[in-house]
Parts: sequence; C-alpha cells; structure tokens
Amino acid sequence: MKLYTTRATPFGRTVEIVAHELGLHEDLDIVETIVAPMKDNPAYQQITPMRKIPALIIEDGTLIVDSPVIAEYLAARVGDTRLFAKSSPDHWKVLSRYAIARGIAEASVAARYEFAARPEAFRWQGWVDDQFDRITAALGVFEKDPPAATGAITIADIALGTALGYLDFRFPDYGWRDRFPALAAWVKPVEARPSFAATRPPI
Amino acid sequence: MKLYTTRATPFGRTVEIVAHELGLHEDLDIVETIVAPMKDNPAYQQITPMRKIPALIIEDGTLIVDSPVIAEYLAARVGDTRLFAKSSPDHWKVLSRYAIARGIAEASVAARYEFAARPEAFRWQGWVDDQFDRITAALGVFEKDPPAATGAITIADIALGTALGYLDFRFPDYGWRDRFPALAAWVKPVEARPSFAATRPPI
Repeated sequence: MKLYTTRATPFGRTVEIVAHELGLHEDLDIVETIVAPMKDNPAYQQITPMRKIPALIIEDGTLIVDSPVIAEYLAARVGDTRLFAKSSPDHWKVLSRYAIARGIAEASVAARYEFAARPEAFRWQGWVDDQFDRITAALGVFEKDPPAATGAITIADIALGTALGYLDFRFPDYGWRDRFPALAAWVKPVEARPSFAATRPPI
Repeated sequence: MKLYTTRATPFGRTVEIVAHELGLHEDLDIVETIVAPMKDNPAYQQITPMRKIPALIIEDGTLIVDSPVIAEYLAARVGDTRLFAKSSPDHWKVLSRYAIARGIAEASVAARYEFAARPEAFRWQGWVDDQFDRITAALGVFEKDPPAATGAITIADIALGTALGYLDFRFPDYGWRDRFPALAAWVKPVEARPSFAATRPPI
C-alpha cells in the first residue's frame, strides 16, 4: 500500500498510528507529500482531486480517502475493529468523539493556514479567534469526560492525541496543558506508546 | 431523535435525505439551527462544542456527530446498510467517493464563507480560486466515472447530489452543468427522488 502523507499533518499521523497499532506499518510504502492551500501540485491532484493528505492507494489501485476511511479500511484489512469499539455499546460515542477530535485538528489547521498561507494583508484575527473558541470548547468536553487511562485505546483517543500533538507543534503558546490538566495527565502515557513515539511531528 | 440542521447546509441535507431513503424522516424532530463562523451560539455550543451542523441527539441523550457518523447511525438503526454498499466489493470505493463529494461541499462552503462571513478588507480571491480548482478537479473525476444511472443509490451519490445542489444554490454562475454534462444528466432523476425533492435548499 502507498500512503501519501507527512508527519506534520495530524490526520496523516493518526493513520500512521493506526497502522502501527494494528501491526501494519511495515506494509505501508510512505510517500512524503507536502500540500498547502494555493500550492499547485498537479501530480498529486491526479492521485486525489481535493489534494488532501493522507491518501492511500491499495494493491488493486483503489484510492482510499480520507483519514477516517483509511483508518477503518486498515482495521477491516486485519479484521481487528477494536479501535472502533465496533461491538461495544460505546461505538457511536467513540465515532462521535473521533469526529470532535478531528474537528479540533481541522480548526487548528485552519488557524495555522490563516497565518502560514494567506498574504499578510488578508489575515483576519477574528477567524483565528473563532477557531480557538471552538477548540477550547471541544477540549473542555474531553477534559470533563477524559478517555480512560487504562483499557484499550480507541480511534477517538488516537485522534485526540494527534490533535494535542499538533497544538504542541504549531501553537505551543496556547498552553493547553495548563487549561486542561486532566488531558495533560492522560496524554503522557499515550505519547509514550511506540505508535505515537515513532510518528512525532518534525521539529 | 432531535436533528439540529438547516436545509442550507449540504451536510444536513445529506442526513435528511438518508433519513427519507431509510423511512426514518418522520422520526426526526428537526430543530432549525443557523450557524456561521464568528456568530456566537452558546446554547448550541453546549450541545456540540464545534458548533457544526448537523448534530443528532438520540433517545438516551447521546450526541452523534458529524454527518457521516449520523448517516451511518441511521442506517444501522434500521439495519439497512445498502446505502453504504457494506457487503459489496465497492464498499471502500463508495466511502472514498463519499469523502470526495463531501470535500466538494466543504470547499464550496469555504468559498462562500470567504465572501459571506469575512469582512471585506480581508477577503482573498486566491483562496476562493483554490477552492474552485479543487472542486473542478473532483467533479472531473466524477464526470469521467459517473454514478450508475440505475440501481441502488449510495451515500456517495446522495452527497454528490447535495454538493451539486449547493453549487446551484450558492454559486449558480459557476455553471457546473455546462462543464460536466454527464453529471448534469445523472442528477436529473436523482433530484426528482422524493427524498431530494422534499429537502431542497431555501430560495
């Protein structure tokens, strides 16, 4: 399988962590791929028209996007759907928390693009503030109901961990650890997992 | 079930259409909800921290987000997963096409926000052009390999139909019907389905 991704994206990192947790990482041929709004990339757009990362191409040539679909595909490929709590009464809660964690990462990337991709004259602080208002509200939800410290890790936990890692990477001044101490305590052993340790964003 | 949504969003419309196709629409208590970037909505943020629509609250109080999870939940609720082609070899292709169709809608909403939500001084045409470059590439992929004219409708078809409906609604000058004649032909009977007809965006 060919995985187009980069460690700088929380969505690609989530997929790589899922592959590690499933024992599939060795089967991924990773193609380092940089995308940014406004940056033409006609070769990559031939692979996936929205030019988003990650994207997976499997052996028969089928394109699999985007990150939640890739994660679910990898789990189905090895027949191990525990990450998705498939047979648990918490299944829909896990999927919804996964969506909220992804929302945190999406808002963080949107805030970053405002300053990293947009010409200075058109940058709008109000947009960034709005993204962080959402991020703070969502992290507040997780802080009040943090993931279990023990037991099986879920796809929601992985996505929350990579979203927090992205905030560390791009917005160290946001100081989420001081605002959300229960999450700061929870993430410590998560970050120490081999899957997380092997996929840290570049410095 | 309480569904927070509005017909103006392609994501909420997709969920409503899924409910119609599954015979579940009568079971939805629809709460008309308007969201926009920068518009505070503390009551709604209590329901779902990212303040996105749609959001579903089921009988036991569980929050289900976002639209792909709600759609999958509704299908599982009635035990009819044909929309997701669950037992077909095309399952992953359907899910990936659904993600691309959603990407078209997301890019269209992002383009709209640039002009509808952002103060005039900070608007950047380059951002809008970039979104439409992606939209055009993705519609080109569907144009080359359009959904089947007959046979069971899938979640990917529904999302493509609502994305095209959103382009009609917000960007009539884009003229997608002239650019993508196979899709224009395909969408005609789709728009005539009761589920689509009952959920048209407001004029």
